[in-house]
Amino acid sequence: MARYVVDVMPKREILDPQGKAVLGALPRLGFEGVSDVRQGKRFEIEVEGEDDDRQREEVRRMAETLLANPVIEYFTVHAHEPSVELVDATADDSGAS
Amino acid sequence: MARYVVDVMPKREILDPQGKAVLGALPRLGFEGVSDVRQGKRFEIEVEGEDDDRQREEVRRMAETLLANPVIEYFTVHAHEPSVELVDATADDSGAS
Repeated sequence: MARYVVDVMPKREILDPQGKAVLGALPRLGFEGVSDVRQGKRFEIEVEGEDDDRQREEVRRMAETLLANPVIEYFTVHAHEPSVELVDATADDSGAS
Repeated sequence: MARYVVDVMPKREILDPQGKAVLGALPRLGFEGVSDVRQGKRFEIEVEGEDDDRQREEVRRMAETLLANPVIEYFTVHAHEPSVELVDATADDSGAS
């Protein structure tokens, strides 16, 4: 079983209304000093078989065809490392109210 | 200027209709062998000042407060490396039709 991550982000020259909405909301919530926010998509894809160049190329073609709109978005494909760093937010209640 | 990435994904036990829609569409587009797709969000956040523990904690609080819904999503915060690997899909036309 091979696992991949496809990150899809709006190109720099493209307006990003979702990112702008977040950027506008942050000061109202008391967060200062944020100068830019861009919002995109993240896909985690599980494929039968081993990770190899052919599989990776296949995932790249999925991204081009279905996951991203190459006119306004760019994407990256990389292998998904089983992350020990994945944090369950509810389990990480370190006293912030 | 410090740059962070916040990845927000639906928790495993939560239904992910967007991911399921992608999973269902792939075979119709000729992509076989994909066993699972999860869809989440990726935020790129630019903050004034240097990357340090305090900034990282601040971004974590933004994620908890605004970017993720901790009841149904988990998130990760990591520093954003200026990526040479970012691929402009339109510039990477390696002959796939």
